[in-house]
Amino acid sequence: MPELRKSPILKRWVIISTERGKRPIDFKVTREEIHGGFCPFCEGNESKTPPEVLAYRDPTTKPNSPGWTVRVVPNKFPALQIEGDLNKHGDGIYDMMQGIGAHEVIIESPDHETNIQYLSNDHIGSIFWAIRERMLDLKKDSRFRYILVFKNWGKEAGASLAHSHMQIIATPIIPKRVIEEMDGAKAHYDLKERCIFCDIINQELKDKKRVVHQNEHFIAFSPFAARFPFETWVLPLKHISVYETTDVELLPSLVDIMKTVLLKLDKTLLKPPFNFIIHTSPCNGGDLPYYHWHIEIIPKLTKIAGFEWGSGFYINPTSPEDAAEELRNAKITNEDLMNLKETEKETM
Amino acid sequence: MPELRKSPILKRWVIISTERGKRPIDFKVTREEIHGGFCPFCEGNESKTPPEVLAYRDPTTKPNSPGWTVRVVPNKFPALQIEGDLNKHGDGIYDMMQGIGAHEVIIESPDHETNIQYLSNDHIGSIFWAIRERMLDLKKDSRFRYILVFKNWGKEAGASLAHSHMQIIATPIIPKRVIEEMDGAKAHYDLKERCIFCDIINQELKDKKRVVHQNEHFIAFSPFAARFPFETWVLPLKHISVYETTDVELLPSLVDIMKTVLLKLDKTLLKPPFNFIIHTSPCNGGDLPYYHWHIEIIPKLTKIAGFEWGSGFYINPTSPEDAAEELRNAKITNEDLMNLKETEKETM
Repeated sequence: MPELRKSPILKRWVIISTERGKRPIDFKVTREEIHGGFCPFCEGNESKTPPEVLAYRDPTTKPNSPGWTVRVVPNKFPALQIEGDLNKHGDGIYDMMQGIGAHEVIIESPDHETNIQYLSNDHIGSIFWAIRERMLDLKKDSRFRYILVFKNWGKEAGASLAHSHMQIIATPIIPKRVIEEMDGAKAHYDLKERCIFCDIINQELKDKKRVVHQNEHFIAFSPFAARFPFETWVLPLKHISVYETTDVELLPSLVDIMKTVLLKLDKTLLKPPFNFIIHTSPCNGGDLPYYHWHIEIIPKLTKIAGFEWGSGFYINPTSPEDAAEELRNAKITNEDLMNLKETEKETM
Repeated sequence: MPELRKSPILKRWVIISTERGKRPIDFKVTREEIHGGFCPFCEGNESKTPPEVLAYRDPTTKPNSPGWTVRVVPNKFPALQIEGDLNKHGDGIYDMMQGIGAHEVIIESPDHETNIQYLSNDHIGSIFWAIRERMLDLKKDSRFRYILVFKNWGKEAGASLAHSHMQIIATPIIPKRVIEEMDGAKAHYDLKERCIFCDIINQELKDKKRVVHQNEHFIAFSPFAARFPFETWVLPLKHISVYETTDVELLPSLVDIMKTVLLKLDKTLLKPPFNFIIHTSPCNGGDLPYYHWHIEIIPKLTKIAGFEWGSGFYINPTSPEDAAEELRNAKITNEDLMNLKETEKETM
């Protein structure tokens, strides 16, 4: 059973997940990034994952068989386990609880050689809809306080499998980073009675210099205090605090902006490894006047080193204004949409 | 001039250091980790660095020439610049100031092929003494609020040069991570009138299972809520809040424990890339009853991915108790002290 432990100084929680436990020698293997030839996410290998919890598939096909376009399965090596009680307890100065939670994988497509931004708009839309469906279902479990959805692509960004996928982790506590974001946004609201994200959107629309792309319902920009080169945030223009309450009418705009930004990053940075993370409100918070859901996209171009670990601040060698200009100017051609395979092979 | 920018939501500062500015194509080079053959830190190449601010050298030799054992120079590509005023200002919702600070490099030895833990005890002692001298000097500058000392070793840990070195960055604000640590420690002191680090040391000495090494004046242990596999903390047993006020009599114990722990990590994990960071009190704080300086050592074995970026909590696949046992059992032989060169070539 994984264990959640709390740092007595920083109040930061850590998952000690010894089921994924590694012997020292295993880390050498990780460092050398050995990828086997077999992929459990490919069509035809459905029996190699735990049974699907959601799939969009041809209605004539059976669960856990070929015929799907998007498939969600529990993680075979979950960081947190679904069965059990939290059993909060202490040991002297230390606090801990059992590592209860959910850990699922969204397999974005049966095709091993593609990535989300190269799929059709309808297909991308169904992935973002699947996220909504899983969030609504997981939120029924009263043990969960937060649901985190993220994508790691490329080994430098932490992906252990090359086949394009996202992950969902439901946690029994609200993560520290989320609490900080909520607290910061609430402090602004308490002072001004305005959502800070709405204020930021208004300033970015006026300044224009950090805007990467905009469409009917969404904006993408380089944040003013970007930690990383080419970090890009995507937000709904309208104030919405909870991801899964977003109107279905906004879905085509979300698909357009995510596809456009990811393709522009690929073109500008030669298909970099990247992470993106959906930032949304905690479970059971309801609609919040001070929070605004968004997606943070981080191309993995620099290494985090002692300075960042020691200080919690970041050195970014590219100004957000320069990054936004490069991305605005990147024009996507049909050729850019076609040449994934060769370059992906280089990068993975 | 670099710029310090504050995140309006998280109140986290970021250094936008465009002097180190990179074009998109440069990141591809970084990802491929090209190291040139020339090393500016090697003996004989002293003219390729800015003039030294401190060196321990044969008294018959001249500054910025061969004959030194430890040499401290300003970083040729500083993240923060020493000249200028802070010029704090705003732009709508955003806050910023000029990137004033110091950024120095401690070249640990003239030998390109070694690392700190393979040097003689006297040599290691002089490195830790040089840190003290530079801290005392930098603290005379009233613009600086914090002095961060850290080491990145190996490209996965963020080192851009293979020659063993440390870095010192003096910042005009107290970094967020330091404030959080101070606040957490102070909250404990306000409640119990005891230093939380002293309490942790007492519990670790009693529990024994997370202790890696102990000598007359220092203890090394795997922290209870370790973020990373084999993360190890080194603390003086006695309560001391400011690194540079540590008695010189404690220096041999510090050298012994750092050398022992780093050699044990090398033996157990096959010379992993690593960071270590000195955590000490902010400038002008004086002796604090609630804070306790220490060194956090982080072998770089796993990748930070979307989950960590999104949540601020960490998945650690190795329990701190298992890690401590492995390190306790690692016996250092004369052979371990000799075979750096071959393995280092593999790793770098």
